[in-house]
Amino acid sequence: MRLSLNTATVKRATLAEAARLCADNGITGIGPWRDAVDAAGGPKAARALLDSYGLTVTSLCRGGFFTSPGGEEDTRRAVEEAATLGTGELVLVVGGLPAGTKNLPAARQTVADAIERLVPVAARHGVRLAIEPLHPMFCADRAVMSTLSQVLDLAERFAPHEVGVVVDTYHVWWDPELFSQLARARGRISCYQVCDWILPLPEDMLLGRGHVGDGHIDFAPITQAVLDAGYHGFAEVEIFNQSIWDTPPSETVSTITSRWQKTFP
Amino acid sequence: MRLSLNTATVKRATLAEAARLCADNGITGIGPWRDAVDAAGGPKAARALLDSYGLTVTSLCRGGFFTSPGGEEDTRRAVEEAATLGTGELVLVVGGLPAGTKNLPAARQTVADAIERLVPVAARHGVRLAIEPLHPMFCADRAVMSTLSQVLDLAERFAPHEVGVVVDTYHVWWDPELFSQLARARGRISCYQVCDWILPLPEDMLLGRGHVGDGHIDFAPITQAVLDAGYHGFAEVEIFNQSIWDTPPSETVSTITSRWQKTFP
Repeated sequence: MRLSLNTATVKRATLAEAARLCADNGITGIGPWRDAVDAAGGPKAARALLDSYGLTVTSLCRGGFFTSPGGEEDTRRAVEEAATLGTGELVLVVGGLPAGTKNLPAARQTVADAIERLVPVAARHGVRLAIEPLHPMFCADRAVMSTLSQVLDLAERFAPHEVGVVVDTYHVWWDPELFSQLARARGRISCYQVCDWILPLPEDMLLGRGHVGDGHIDFAPITQAVLDAGYHGFAEVEIFNQSIWDTPPSETVSTITSRWQKTFP
Repeated sequence: MRLSLNTATVKRATLAEAARLCADNGITGIGPWRDAVDAAGGPKAARALLDSYGLTVTSLCRGGFFTSPGGEEDTRRAVEEAATLGTGELVLVVGGLPAGTKNLPAARQTVADAIERLVPVAARHGVRLAIEPLHPMFCADRAVMSTLSQVLDLAERFAPHEVGVVVDTYHVWWDPELFSQLARARGRISCYQVCDWILPLPEDMLLGRGHVGDGHIDFAPITQAVLDAGYHGFAEVEIFNQSIWDTPPSETVSTITSRWQKTFP
């Protein structure tokens, strides 16, 4: 499996710097966030930049937040940006409970309804809606969809090229149904993201992710199951961690590369 | 549904103080932790104390940690303590990954093997092993069993009076299968624990629980589903939260009582 650098891992770097670091380290894929694309002059300019380094754009992060005002409209723009950027996978974080509400089934229905409306839009652009189940600890504030099983239930209402799933080790490693659901996801794995579960979690639980190998996740069997499900794409390293963000990006990318070689020999 | 005070909610109070606060507030159940029982002179003395207040002992917290050295032996002692204390429900937190390991399926097997050995021991004492699925964010360090479905798969290998499940809203509220699994749990719900999911989580994620009504959980449908599953026991209020621990116990118990009346009218 080839390696891809998600730009969130090197938050301080510009897209140009991230692309050069990829090239310097033999990394052939990149997964940009939209803010990095914007800062690089928009998706057209970003595509030219990434093309100049021969990088495959493995996904665009992200659309979604359908339970907040404006989320669906913003996701329509993200679909166009993904198409312009040359990636067929738009990562979606579906959103948490609407402010002031506690009705989880209703929030999930809001998400399903938005996806249904977006599928034809995305399909016209050749972009797959790649729904990411987030760790259950983000259920209230970020994603009312927490498991692969739950996302596949929704995705399977559509064609495999229309709606896929993001498998992020951080979010799914604990799931007792992980391996059966990965097998079920055949043809629908849009993106495989890796980072490790480290303890203790920091005060901002969003930022508690670690370099592959620093935590509790057993990556080899998960990666094998992703491969067995017919996934031929990249492993995208996406790590939210303040101390990693405070590290020089060149050092971070070097660590990523060596960890990768060690963990997936 | 009647109310029970889990002693962890009023960590600063002695068992005698907690029992008196129950009596003062019309609470008829109590769920002690073993340290509170020890400090009260052991299970026999604790039972006499709680009997003198006419309190039903709704559970004993806790045994388990089968993936750590000594966990199984300690749980055998906890079985005896539960029997002496006069409760038929011993809450089990199964334990996380053994130190230095990452093999989640193996850890789960270790738990299943220990349960199998303990069932006849507990049955002889008239005690049910009440397995608690913990929120997936505790998978690495506290409980390799995260969902009701997973725990029921194990529990159903035994008779309903031998192995039950603990339903704690904090741990299960996010689960897309919550309602179907509660229905499946008929006859096996050992204990219904309530507290709320509040954000942000504190640095010690164990202590991020809130009073019922302060967070994001919609309690009424969950309580109704627990009742519909034939559960006739108490709702045990168990809240781990430093600021609640820093509050005078009398104030905490008063808040619990009023929240209860408001949330389950």
